[in-house]
Amino acid sequence: MVVVMKPGTQQRDIEALVAKFKEMDLDVGVTNGVGCTILGLVGDTTAVDMDKISINPHVERVMRVQEPYKKANRKFHPEDTVVAVGKAKIGGGSFSVVAGPCSVESQAQIIAVAEDVKRSGAALLRGGAFKPRTSPYSFQGMGLEGLELLLEAKAATGLPIVTEIMSPRYVEVFEEKVDLVQIGARNMQNFDLLKEVGKMSKPVLLKRGLSSSYEEWIMSAEYIMAGGNENVILCERGIRTFETYTRNTLDVSAIPAIKKMSHLPVIVDPSHSAGMYWMVEPLAMAAIAAGADGLIIEVHNDPPHAKCDGQQSLTPENFGRLMGKVGAMVDLMGKTLVK
Amino acid sequence: MVVVMKPGTQQRDIEALVAKFKEMDLDVGVTNGVGCTILGLVGDTTAVDMDKISINPHVERVMRVQEPYKKANRKFHPEDTVVAVGKAKIGGGSFSVVAGPCSVESQAQIIAVAEDVKRSGAALLRGGAFKPRTSPYSFQGMGLEGLELLLEAKAATGLPIVTEIMSPRYVEVFEEKVDLVQIGARNMQNFDLLKEVGKMSKPVLLKRGLSSSYEEWIMSAEYIMAGGNENVILCERGIRTFETYTRNTLDVSAIPAIKKMSHLPVIVDPSHSAGMYWMVEPLAMAAIAAGADGLIIEVHNDPPHAKCDGQQSLTPENFGRLMGKVGAMVDLMGKTLVK
Amino acid sequence: MVVVMKPGTQQRDIEALVAKFKEMDLDVGVTNGVGCTILGLVGDTTAVDMDKISINPHVERVMRVQEPYKKANRKFHPEDTVVAVGKAKIGGGSFSVVAGPCSVESQAQIIAVAEDVKRSGAALLRGGAFKPRTSPYSFQGMGLEGLELLLEAKAATGLPIVTEIMSPRYVEVFEEKVDLVQIGARNMQNFDLLKEVGKMSKPVLLKRGLSSSYEEWIMSAEYIMAGGNENVILCERGIRTFETYTRNTLDVSAIPAIKKMSHLPVIVDPSHSAGMYWMVEPLAMAAIAAGADGLIIEVHNDPPHAKCDGQQSLTPENFGRLMGKVGAMVDLMGKTLVK
Amino acid sequence: MVVVMKPGTQQRDIEALVAKFKEMDLDVGVTNGVGCTILGLVGDTTAVDMDKISINPHVERVMRVQEPYKKANRKFHPEDTVVAVGKAKIGGGSFSVVAGPCSVESQAQIIAVAEDVKRSGAALLRGGAFKPRTSPYSFQGMGLEGLELLLEAKAATGLPIVTEIMSPRYVEVFEEKVDLVQIGARNMQNFDLLKEVGKMSKPVLLKRGLSSSYEEWIMSAEYIMAGGNENVILCERGIRTFETYTRNTLDVSAIPAIKKMSHLPVIVDPSHSAGMYWMVEPLAMAAIAAGADGLIIEVHNDPPHAKCDGQQSLTPENFGRLMGKVGAMVDLMGKTLVK
Repeated sequence: MVVVMKPGTQQRDIEALVAKFKEMDLDVGVTNGVGCTILGLVGDTTAVDMDKISINPHVERVMRVQEPYKKANRKFHPEDTVVAVGKAKIGGGSFSVVAGPCSVESQAQIIAVAEDVKRSGAALLRGGAFKPRTSPYSFQGMGLEGLELLLEAKAATGLPIVTEIMSPRYVEVFEEKVDLVQIGARNMQNFDLLKEVGKMSKPVLLKRGLSSSYEEWIMSAEYIMAGGNENVILCERGIRTFETYTRNTLDVSAIPAIKKMSHLPVIVDPSHSAGMYWMVEPLAMAAIAAGADGLIIEVHNDPPHAKCDGQQSLTPENFGRLMGKVGAMVDLMGKTLVK
Repeated sequence: MVVVMKPGTQQRDIEALVAKFKEMDLDVGVTNGVGCTILGLVGDTTAVDMDKISINPHVERVMRVQEPYKKANRKFHPEDTVVAVGKAKIGGGSFSVVAGPCSVESQAQIIAVAEDVKRSGAALLRGGAFKPRTSPYSFQGMGLEGLELLLEAKAATGLPIVTEIMSPRYVEVFEEKVDLVQIGARNMQNFDLLKEVGKMSKPVLLKRGLSSSYEEWIMSAEYIMAGGNENVILCERGIRTFETYTRNTLDVSAIPAIKKMSHLPVIVDPSHSAGMYWMVEPLAMAAIAAGADGLIIEVHNDPPHAKCDGQQSLTPENFGRLMGKVGAMVDLMGKTLVK
Repeated sequence: MVVVMKPGTQQRDIEALVAKFKEMDLDVGVTNGVGCTILGLVGDTTAVDMDKISINPHVERVMRVQEPYKKANRKFHPEDTVVAVGKAKIGGGSFSVVAGPCSVESQAQIIAVAEDVKRSGAALLRGGAFKPRTSPYSFQGMGLEGLELLLEAKAATGLPIVTEIMSPRYVEVFEEKVDLVQIGARNMQNFDLLKEVGKMSKPVLLKRGLSSSYEEWIMSAEYIMAGGNENVILCERGIRTFETYTRNTLDVSAIPAIKKMSHLPVIVDPSHSAGMYWMVEPLAMAAIAAGADGLIIEVHNDPPHAKCDGQQSLTPENFGRLMGKVGAMVDLMGKTLVK
Repeated sequence: MVVVMKPGTQQRDIEALVAKFKEMDLDVGVTNGVGCTILGLVGDTTAVDMDKISINPHVERVMRVQEPYKKANRKFHPEDTVVAVGKAKIGGGSFSVVAGPCSVESQAQIIAVAEDVKRSGAALLRGGAFKPRTSPYSFQGMGLEGLELLLEAKAATGLPIVTEIMSPRYVEVFEEKVDLVQIGARNMQNFDLLKEVGKMSKPVLLKRGLSSSYEEWIMSAEYIMAGGNENVILCERGIRTFETYTRNTLDVSAIPAIKKMSHLPVIVDPSHSAGMYWMVEPLAMAAIAAGADGLIIEVHNDPPHAKCDGQQSLTPENFGRLMGKVGAMVDLMGKTLVK
């Protein structure tokens, strides 16, 4: 941590602050110059609250040097984390695809889609039972009934299931029934939910918030990991920018950045990024080329009649075609497509 | 709602779509031109799902004409909503100020600050008991104990209390003890929480999400109102932009915009917008001048030792000075400062 | 400047870097810690290129402590700069209003508007002769002919004129004829134009770029000042964010921020911020309340037939009403409205 | 174009507006509903100014249906445009790489880099002679002398040269000496410069502005094309968002979006997007996978001593390694790498 003193600060005020840091078991180096003094702090600064220092009337600025996350930090855990869910494997050279409809709508629908995506090479089945919708008047998902239908589709195909948890009250039922627990973008900083999910034994898929920085996103993973659950997969799904042509702006740089900052695997959701089915393929290809460990893709057997997100869903046929290209791209990147 | 057909669409495909809309009890006007057909839909289009129409292979674009919100819509409720909490009144020409520390830290602290802010003219006391913190290693608030201390401060001063609810599990205790229930920016689209709060009888202070549009923000209010709780106060607290000098960018235009779109009152949080105590005054003045119905301001008796947000908290002395200017500005705007 | 070394850097590599800094006449303080060394550099670091240091393979991060601007820096010039144009005065407690149409359209139009805005208290006349338009097919302004019409309006009313320069080739004619030379938002980093304008003797109105940080904006003023022209007025006109309801998002915090960073005066353009005439008043009030030194407002005698920006232009009647409120607000802020 | 009337508009006011549109040779369809009338306009609406209509007191909203660009529009020019520069070919299945240093620094440097990048497979040489720098105190480029050195490097290697034009005054010398004329991101809406470049016979590389929408970017290309110069290559180089880890956020979705909207080729600059040399490779791979027609990459023989952008420049060795991967990725995408 670096503390820059205001020009003209008296020597005794500097010394008082230095003494305070030494009490916190930090080493302090002082650089004195004309009209500017810089303090360099080394030691374990994780517990030091930058805000509290910056309120000191003699302090001009405080700058953090070390990252505020530990368990998710690649520095302390150099090898890639690999998350296994059923036969699927995500991370460390293994690549798996999650596919399925935006929301579970009926037994026939979810089983048909599950069979289709399995045939094309998906390793996990997604499907929303509880749906976060902007409008209270939109379809809110089938709830627990939807969860049961997902289990039927799992029974029929063997695919592990991925679905979103929106409230701490469902932690028990998700712990029992769901294979990969999704935290949606709008709940990325629902800290109460993160803490509850941190106590679960099931792996977690943590979507990036619409306007969350890489550091905030990793800090949300840190919440889950601090609770004891270290099987976290990060999912880039596009951020909110000034550009309105796409639903969100896929931040493909997040993939190499997160891989440098953290050992956790990163997958990409091209469907929500684009918001338009015809753009899913180029974004999926770009994600793999940038180093992603997996994809999550919306597939619906009848997009025009989908209860949500039809405009960004692929038909099973288009998904099949896409998976051919995914395979070739995963190969080129020297990874293994795990089905 | 307006539907633009793709160039070259066959007459029979247009007719099929028109028939479908008529089944939904909508009137449809068709404008035919060279290479372009436009359908105008009138009637109650709230139930029409734009996404479902846009997936039709002959449709180029769908544009909404009516707002997707009803209960919060000024068109159907032209008079200003006034929310009364204790003696405080917010909206419709009445202006009240909420003040207090970022978090409740001790009995002595909260009572001292409560007395100070009351003396200077605040009408409500704020104080965090449950704190949403980016890091799992930061102080998370005193929890239920903090709530009890707020009640002691209320007993000592008569000020109604405002504090943030972070989980549905606390709805009962908040219903019993809290006067104005705050939904924080990070939970603005925690729809499960919104639904629960919609069943409460206590008024709600709904902060704008970091990157939420005006419409999304009003839709979150609509969630609460659809549940039966129509006493919602909207709070602008700065949005996330590319500018990093300030903690957030105060969107002062939100005040006149929301007042045109909705009848709900709007207050402003200059402390979180600026993130720096010396900027609170100019932003507070700007908010009132733009038409705000109230302010929420962080005040701490000892900012350098505050457990959070010290750098943006005013001392009681500075808050007192600010309130003098607030009074003059509220006067100039023709409103009444209600203490 | 602060340089953080990578963990594990050898002592001799640190010494080599320190020696290099000392050759640059900088004092260097070294803080050694377990796995982390911090160098604090003091002296004149303006000439030090951060990018060059950061490319050193042993360097983890470089952080600037001093601002990269000098002439515009309040630290070296504590008193407010006041820019006088004719009778108008902007800065240091004096407040003036610029008003007029988006573009000059005819002799009758510009003279009528000039007389109207003068009567209501404007101190300067604006009017576009050269117009930056997104589309090559839109009206591009009357050019030099428009400039002559502005001079006629000046002759008729005595109001000094403000108009935008879009190309270095017009520097001579602007030097001769224009009283306050405007650099538009889209040209804020047209460095070639900034250098040319820096050689002029006429004061400059520098609009903030759509996505420019405060520092970049001040650096553009520094370009002009480095050329010898120190009469620069900064103009906040809204930034580009995710919110699309308004044309731009007025960043009212820019006013106190710039006043802390620089001694240059700041005015606000509520017309381009809002993009809607009915929002001009609340934004103008907010700007004054936040400490602005002036306003620039679009006024047209016949908005529905304006050749551009009609939807955000006030009628002379509405401008007159606004000026009454502006006067009261300027008074409350303890400033003097100079006409 | 669609015009939505305000609720309660009188029939005669609607008729007056309809008559006005018919005078403009437009067909108008009227949809009447309870409290809402929608007008659909068809015909050539390019000349209709949306702003002028929206100022009509009875109009609630105006929505454009057709794109405002013609020459760049894929609808009127379905085949891909291919831009050839020397042996290089960009677009329509041909892929070429531009490489070279941020700025020309000396004869030895530019010739050495040119030979290196040619050997690795670059088809064009980049190098800044005139540099747009945020600070007036930073190195501003070698100017015309730099241009001569680029020509020497071209003579030595045969590589056509790409360099940025910053002012209309250099149009003649660029017309004579430069093979591909670059417009930088900060000048994307320097309309005066666009018009001048539109009269040149040399192809143009138009970088996207930091916060320009796809439509604005294409409109800037339209400026150049409207002047007669139809050889425009668009270059995505990252946009400004809230994320500060990367220098800019590479908007990889721009590639498929622009290809749908326009027939012009699109290349990507991963160096400026990332701002860090180690991130160039994954972003370059992602760009090709998303459908880009080329890359522009910063290469320097001695990055730690580069006069600018050293931290994002590749060494010739790293560039050589990258080109091996580029070749494989271009192959996989079914395109031809043209050297």
